[in-house]
Amino acid sequence: MEQYTKAEILIEALPYICKFHDQKFLIKYGGHAMVNEQARNWIAKDLVLLKYVGINPIVVHGGGPEINRAMEKMGKTPEFIHGLRVTDEETLEIVKMVLIGKINGDIVSKLERYGGKAVGLSGKSGQLIKAKKKIQYLMKDSQKIEIDLGMVGEVEHVDTKLIDILVEKRYIPVISPIGVDHQGNDLNLNADIAAGDIAGAMNAEKLIMVTDVDGIMDDINDQSTLHRRLTISQIEDMIEKGFITGGMIPKIEACINALDKGVQSVHIVNGKTPHAVLLEIFTEEGVGTMIVKE
Amino acid sequence: MEQYTKAEILIEALPYICKFHDQKFLIKYGGHAMVNEQARNWIAKDLVLLKYVGINPIVVHGGGPEINRAMEKMGKTPEFIHGLRVTDEETLEIVKMVLIGKINGDIVSKLERYGGKAVGLSGKSGQLIKAKKKIQYLMKDSQKIEIDLGMVGEVEHVDTKLIDILVEKRYIPVISPIGVDHQGNDLNLNADIAAGDIAGAMNAEKLIMVTDVDGIMDDINDQSTLHRRLTISQIEDMIEKGFITGGMIPKIEACINALDKGVQSVHIVNGKTPHAVLLEIFTEEGVGTMIVKE
Amino acid sequence: MEQYTKAEILIEALPYICKFHDQKFLIKYGGHAMVNEQARNWIAKDLVLLKYVGINPIVVHGGGPEINRAMEKMGKTPEFIHGLRVTDEETLEIVKMVLIGKINGDIVSKLERYGGKAVGLSGKSGQLIKAKKKIQYLMKDSQKIEIDLGMVGEVEHVDTKLIDILVEKRYIPVISPIGVDHQGNDLNLNADIAAGDIAGAMNAEKLIMVTDVDGIMDDINDQSTLHRRLTISQIEDMIEKGFITGGMIPKIEACINALDKGVQSVHIVNGKTPHAVLLEIFTEEGVGTMIVKE
Amino acid sequence: MEQYTKAEILIEALPYICKFHDQKFLIKYGGHAMVNEQARNWIAKDLVLLKYVGINPIVVHGGGPEINRAMEKMGKTPEFIHGLRVTDEETLEIVKMVLIGKINGDIVSKLERYGGKAVGLSGKSGQLIKAKKKIQYLMKDSQKIEIDLGMVGEVEHVDTKLIDILVEKRYIPVISPIGVDHQGNDLNLNADIAAGDIAGAMNAEKLIMVTDVDGIMDDINDQSTLHRRLTISQIEDMIEKGFITGGMIPKIEACINALDKGVQSVHIVNGKTPHAVLLEIFTEEGVGTMIVKE
Amino acid sequence: MEQYTKAEILIEALPYICKFHDQKFLIKYGGHAMVNEQARNWIAKDLVLLKYVGINPIVVHGGGPEINRAMEKMGKTPEFIHGLRVTDEETLEIVKMVLIGKINGDIVSKLERYGGKAVGLSGKSGQLIKAKKKIQYLMKDSQKIEIDLGMVGEVEHVDTKLIDILVEKRYIPVISPIGVDHQGNDLNLNADIAAGDIAGAMNAEKLIMVTDVDGIMDDINDQSTLHRRLTISQIEDMIEKGFITGGMIPKIEACINALDKGVQSVHIVNGKTPHAVLLEIFTEEGVGTMIVKE
Amino acid sequence: MEQYTKAEILIEALPYICKFHDQKFLIKYGGHAMVNEQARNWIAKDLVLLKYVGINPIVVHGGGPEINRAMEKMGKTPEFIHGLRVTDEETLEIVKMVLIGKINGDIVSKLERYGGKAVGLSGKSGQLIKAKKKIQYLMKDSQKIEIDLGMVGEVEHVDTKLIDILVEKRYIPVISPIGVDHQGNDLNLNADIAAGDIAGAMNAEKLIMVTDVDGIMDDINDQSTLHRRLTISQIEDMIEKGFITGGMIPKIEACINALDKGVQSVHIVNGKTPHAVLLEIFTEEGVGTMIVKE
Repeated sequence: MEQYTKAEILIEALPYICKFHDQKFLIKYGGHAMVNEQARNWIAKDLVLLKYVGINPIVVHGGGPEINRAMEKMGKTPEFIHGLRVTDEETLEIVKMVLIGKINGDIVSKLERYGGKAVGLSGKSGQLIKAKKKIQYLMKDSQKIEIDLGMVGEVEHVDTKLIDILVEKRYIPVISPIGVDHQGNDLNLNADIAAGDIAGAMNAEKLIMVTDVDGIMDDINDQSTLHRRLTISQIEDMIEKGFITGGMIPKIEACINALDKGVQSVHIVNGKTPHAVLLEIFTEEGVGTMIVKE
Repeated sequence: MEQYTKAEILIEALPYICKFHDQKFLIKYGGHAMVNEQARNWIAKDLVLLKYVGINPIVVHGGGPEINRAMEKMGKTPEFIHGLRVTDEETLEIVKMVLIGKINGDIVSKLERYGGKAVGLSGKSGQLIKAKKKIQYLMKDSQKIEIDLGMVGEVEHVDTKLIDILVEKRYIPVISPIGVDHQGNDLNLNADIAAGDIAGAMNAEKLIMVTDVDGIMDDINDQSTLHRRLTISQIEDMIEKGFITGGMIPKIEACINALDKGVQSVHIVNGKTPHAVLLEIFTEEGVGTMIVKE
Repeated sequence: MEQYTKAEILIEALPYICKFHDQKFLIKYGGHAMVNEQARNWIAKDLVLLKYVGINPIVVHGGGPEINRAMEKMGKTPEFIHGLRVTDEETLEIVKMVLIGKINGDIVSKLERYGGKAVGLSGKSGQLIKAKKKIQYLMKDSQKIEIDLGMVGEVEHVDTKLIDILVEKRYIPVISPIGVDHQGNDLNLNADIAAGDIAGAMNAEKLIMVTDVDGIMDDINDQSTLHRRLTISQIEDMIEKGFITGGMIPKIEACINALDKGVQSVHIVNGKTPHAVLLEIFTEEGVGTMIVKE
Repeated sequence: MEQYTKAEILIEALPYICKFHDQKFLIKYGGHAMVNEQARNWIAKDLVLLKYVGINPIVVHGGGPEINRAMEKMGKTPEFIHGLRVTDEETLEIVKMVLIGKINGDIVSKLERYGGKAVGLSGKSGQLIKAKKKIQYLMKDSQKIEIDLGMVGEVEHVDTKLIDILVEKRYIPVISPIGVDHQGNDLNLNADIAAGDIAGAMNAEKLIMVTDVDGIMDDINDQSTLHRRLTISQIEDMIEKGFITGGMIPKIEACINALDKGVQSVHIVNGKTPHAVLLEIFTEEGVGTMIVKE
Repeated sequence: MEQYTKAEILIEALPYICKFHDQKFLIKYGGHAMVNEQARNWIAKDLVLLKYVGINPIVVHGGGPEINRAMEKMGKTPEFIHGLRVTDEETLEIVKMVLIGKINGDIVSKLERYGGKAVGLSGKSGQLIKAKKKIQYLMKDSQKIEIDLGMVGEVEHVDTKLIDILVEKRYIPVISPIGVDHQGNDLNLNADIAAGDIAGAMNAEKLIMVTDVDGIMDDINDQSTLHRRLTISQIEDMIEKGFITGGMIPKIEACINALDKGVQSVHIVNGKTPHAVLLEIFTEEGVGTMIVKE
Repeated sequence: MEQYTKAEILIEALPYICKFHDQKFLIKYGGHAMVNEQARNWIAKDLVLLKYVGINPIVVHGGGPEINRAMEKMGKTPEFIHGLRVTDEETLEIVKMVLIGKINGDIVSKLERYGGKAVGLSGKSGQLIKAKKKIQYLMKDSQKIEIDLGMVGEVEHVDTKLIDILVEKRYIPVISPIGVDHQGNDLNLNADIAAGDIAGAMNAEKLIMVTDVDGIMDDINDQSTLHRRLTISQIEDMIEKGFITGGMIPKIEACINALDKGVQSVHIVNGKTPHAVLLEIFTEEGVGTMIVKE
């Protein structure tokens, strides 16, 4: 009997496997979702399974908390303006060392441990991410002031060729969000936005934001207020009405950016929920919030 | 919580999916296992799922009961010698019409209904199965007598080219066990033996016999006596000791034939058990009997 | 001298071989043209030769007389409305068994015997023919009445992928005209119409109707009245003037359907004429009637 | 009736077309066989037909008579030793101009005129024929004397890559027998021998020598003494017994060279016989002499 | 130190190598530029180097002086009208023998000697150049008179398929400017014009005219008056003002023809300047005159 | 004149470009050779040029000095035994961050800046380097003692698939020498030895050690004592005689390892010499020491 249930559950996944066969899913794997070994294992197994059943995950990861820790170790105080890290030369060096030299490799190792073949990359390789310095404006005394965030960039162009090759050869690409400008300078990118840009360029079907919240909720302390499905206009309405505020707003903007770039749906799931990615994709009800254009 | 269990079950399949990735499994789908709609649906879903997760099923089907019914309708009495159907011209016509014209198409339809792409074939297409008339001997009064079974054949050569093309292009081939001799005459083949021959020629990893028994049991009425794993020598021992008798013996010979042809393991499962194929492949304990060389 | 003539005849075919190189010809092989062994050999040899000289035949076959015989054997009376077979469940079963289980295999065998590589298929495999139930209307007392023909369908969509693969790999596809509707039900198709639909979908250059008449004649008893070449408007004119009547009209409609679907020319030839297909294609004068758009 | 005969003749070619499908035939087209326009047309049509029915002709041509004429026009006297043209620098220039600049192009033109796609080459292109200076010995007063033939070479290595590409892309290569030594000097090659070397390197099934004789005859004036099939040992026997003498001996040696290099059969046919190549290949009895190893 | 200079020079070529990577350059190699062994070596080495660094040269050669010499040897007087050779049948034969049988092969040999893989072709092979008889008009007594130049043609269509294959397989094609009309007659083509036509058809980036002058100069005796870069309108201006006259005008027209056909720039360089092709391409200043559309 | 010299120098490289076309060169780029911006530019330009002229560089880099600096900044003292870095967990983290997160990216950036397409990798991606913990022995009081170096490994297996794909798609792979053991733990590898192992696995023609010495010299202060070419036995002789001592010995062992693994020649060049790689490859005399088997 228990056996039968197992089989039924496998079979339940079949329509989803058929539907998403050969599609690309961009997984934005946030630093806050990498809280413990177990959570990291859940994600890794989910992504390897996706790959084996014919869906192509492409990972863009963050690493904010770890970067902060490394900075503090070196006696530097992290500073953010509008959710973007102020990045001087020394900070950029730390960002790259932590993202590319540590977190990226850890994700690759986990994926390979569970049977996947992964390739760690930054936006520097194969001219993957061409970026330009981001000009940030701030309103002060009802005047627009230009703020210098340092070596912070925004995506100008994504050259998908290298990723296409790797995906086609059955690798899972794992990308650190560092871009290069036309002078060859590295730039620190916001991982959420970059993920949306890459998803759009790759014609990804879905962008799945693996975060540390369950999704968009009316009341963050009440799981029953979680929205399963929202349209952009509903979200804009919620922002206007003050239901969505603070740190969530830049993430929401990244979601809308992805939809604008051609992604069909964006999903916010909680990396601390066991196998959240798999459940969001392979079950009717899902576990997080799905955002669609309309 | 229930969600979590679902995901865990999917993930449990991962090592098996990795291990069998890109391999070929020959599914011998027996006529006695096609007892009802539900059982046929279970098998079809299992095979489509296998295909989508990167394992390549190739189906060889039987159809004995249905052939008998058709013959009786036409006023002919089915006759068997040593488990092989005596096949005159008229019988051969009925065999072909039922196998190729009915059962094969029904299997193809089921597979396509659940999202697979299937192609129905007989051994006549693409010179798939070159056969020769089978010479059957009988011991009578301690004398070896040659028996004429009529248009009954045994496989001489399997040309895998057509199947290779179809498998590579992501189709599930469904094969009726009719062969052709060098004069172009059709011959009725024993589906169990033919399945083993095709499995060997295709370098299939497994031959899965979907039957109407749970496997090899010491006492057919006591499920607890089911053997999970047997070697050829253990089986030979069981035959010698009289544990395996009667109608099971030709099937066992077909299993040994497959192992001789290079198949790594043969599995006997019960098509009436829900999702028997999936459970046999994707769970540690399995549901039937696995036979290996040693 | 005789030798020389032989060579000259081979060479005469050269311009046609050049002209039609790599093109696809849809051969509608009618049940009435399969009258005897010799006639079946002629056709088979013609098609194998076409394949070897670089022209790609695709066969769609009928089988009306054989189906009628099988039905009568089972005590059923064939019934037709407007040339379409009224098809209840039992009839459909017989149609499939005869077409797929018998005639299709016989054609495949013949082709393979003369050196071709053939693959027998029905519209069920590889989602080849998606069909829908045909709604037939009848005029009665100047009122349009809807007639239920049972499991009779018309082609909704032809998925050419499987055929393309087989043709490219140098197989001759032989197709039984059975389609599948969106619920997975099989439907009996008119072979003439289906052949035109497949020809159009495959971008076939020619549709060759192998029948039991020499072509379109003003007087069916006077061979000298055979038309070698007709345009659609000439044919419409002949119908209006009553030169073409009765059973020929549905066939003519099938020809016009094929031209509408993009076929360059439709040819009606007599399968009882030795090597009619070859002669129609490879000689200036031809042996049957060619119909072109204008 | 006449129509029927035509078709039968086409069909008679079928077994040969099947048998030789995709094989390569090396056609040595001798200068003496290019006697008139009509004969040149026969050969060209034969080769184009071969190509279209799936057999791949590769042409190596001679041009002795035309070279002699050109030399005489320039006031030079052709000189031969053991059938090899003594070749000083000026002669080599004439040889190249006539072979590459005239005869090769004429053959290409004829082939293209009848629907073929041909490419004219010499052994200079694509390092096709690496040659070395031929050391010729002469017995004089029972002493072996080395003779300097000038710029005459023998094949050292055939690089088949260029020809393989052209054949695969459906071109007919037409090759002038000029080789290049390791210092980059051009060398005049004996076309018969070179044809055998190229045939061997290309794994050609047949070498067909298109000459101005009907084959090997016991009495050159009695057509009835023509041998249809000979083995090497039979030929050696004939030479010993004096049946084969004079100018025929070097040609025979070229035939044996080809068989040694792996060609299955060598055919000697008369280019003045209409469609000799076609008849030799596509009829049971042939028109010339076939030589096989044993 | 000297070593360092060597390396610097190699490195200086890098931006040009990057820029022109995988592009096609049409090299028109004029007969007047083949003056001596050394000059021929320079060109050959330049082209082989280009090929190895990833730029694809395609050579169209002339051979006027050599043709004249051959004609005179045969007692014929070369005759030109408006720079086009009057070409009777005998002249055409000489043209083909010299161009295809001699000069083409010499270029191929040189290229192969320096490590290239070259293939000699005329416009006759692979239907490369389809031409038509050129109608030439002359003004006489202010009347337009049609002049018969004999077998002189102009390009009607270039079939790039053969060249594409050869370039892709890493060969350097060397083309003699002989075309074929629709009746299969060979026609003598002006090499300058043909080179432009082929360059356009092949989507060549550059047409490089290797001549015996340094480029376009205001005063042909004063090297310092050489124009490095000119636009079409500047050139037209120069012609109008009488700076460009005589034999240079047809060459200029050929340049403009190439630009019209889509070539990005045409270069006139002096084949007697050591490595003129390399220097023109790989140095900032160049050595000849570059002509661009505007 | 100067122009001519430039061209001559380009042409001088031609034989080397031909000879090494399509081969793979493993470049071991040592940390001591990355002393200044200019030296890093020289190397980057050299490698990009190699790639463009058809030679495939694969880079394995070191980074010792930079790792030391980073460790010291964090208050850790680098410790070496027999030239291998003692590597505790914290050290390994620093090693990875510096190698993968900083140096690797810097090399990639330089290569891309000069027109190359580079991909940064560690041995973790695509299961590139499977390693095992290195057991190091020390002789102490004439007793062999096992020393624990911590997370230090040696290459067990190189999976070339990912590199093969990247090389074939025209990328320059840049590899940080970090391996993974069977438990998924990262291990710090000696870059010299790893470079030889990868070179052998990739069938590289050459291993070029870019160091901070000019090569092997009898007297390190006397440039004139530099050996241009040495065999293994000559080197062993020099070691025995005490000409090669100290820090050079492990490097020499790495060279011999590479030759053992099948590399044809190992070159030691000085990264501070302008364009040392290019000069070593493209000039007769070279600039460093070449070591060959015999």
